[in-house]
Amino acid sequence: MHDFRTEIVWREGLEFNLSAGENPMLTVATPPEFGGPENAWSPEELFVGSVGSCLLSTFFYFARRFELAVQSCTSSAAGKLEKTAAGLRFTGIDVSIEVVVSDKEAAEKADSLRLKDKLEKYCPVSASLDCPVRLELAVKERA
Amino acid sequence: MHDFRTEIVWREGLEFNLSAGENPMLTVATPPEFGGPENAWSPEELFVGSVGSCLLSTFFYFARRFELAVQSCTSSAAGKLEKTAAGLRFTGIDVSIEVVVSDKEAAEKADSLRLKDKLEKYCPVSASLDCPVRLELAVKERA
Repeated sequence: MHDFRTEIVWREGLEFNLSAGENPMLTVATPPEFGGPENAWSPEELFVGSVGSCLLSTFFYFARRFELAVQSCTSSAAGKLEKTAAGLRFTGIDVSIEVVVSDKEAAEKADSLRLKDKLEKYCPVSASLDCPVRLELAVKERA
Repeated sequence: MHDFRTEIVWREGLEFNLSAGENPMLTVATPPEFGGPENAWSPEELFVGSVGSCLLSTFFYFARRFELAVQSCTSSAAGKLEKTAAGLRFTGIDVSIEVVVSDKEAAEKADSLRLKDKLEKYCPVSASLDCPVRLELAVKERA
């Protein structure tokens, strides 16, 4: 069993300090559309970012385990917040991961590992949500 | 409808750059228990922090709306990650919010507003999860 603990202290207005152990302290604020300041991390962005980065972290867990040499990797995660009958809810999160590997052999190996299925099954954050997470994973050889 | 977008780029090892528009870039890494470095934000901590900070942000939304003058406020959020039959999952997140208001009248007003129920209903992040979120909200007058 693993425990993940964070502390949050109100600063002023709609701004907060988020900390966890010795991690760099993070300013979090209500998003601008709900009255907060521009250019600060909102809880909603952190949520979407946690889903994307957990899928990516899970990808690299398997890349290490199966000795898949990654050259570069970029990813994006976008979450939709919508009014539903129950209130404002995340109705979907789209995550796209693009990986470049060194050659055709490595790309074929990635294919055979069915990594998309593994990420969907083993990423603990995306698997703990009540909203659909759509994952696109593309592994390409270097051009 | 609101869109929340983040970009994540692999740096090296199990470390990533997480960005969202003009927000300060954030280093995210696989947690130490899964082979990552110490003292960096993990996706799991960001996830737990997003739940806690969204509940707090929702609290301040209502505090503004109902003109509840808050003197100080601290909060913590702790998530449990456990092995289940389906794999590693968050099985519960405990959030505690302690608010200090100026006098007895304000504390009574907070009581009458049933803020705990409102936060549980209207916080969009905690309401989008498939794991139980237990909230404790204590509003006290200044000693």
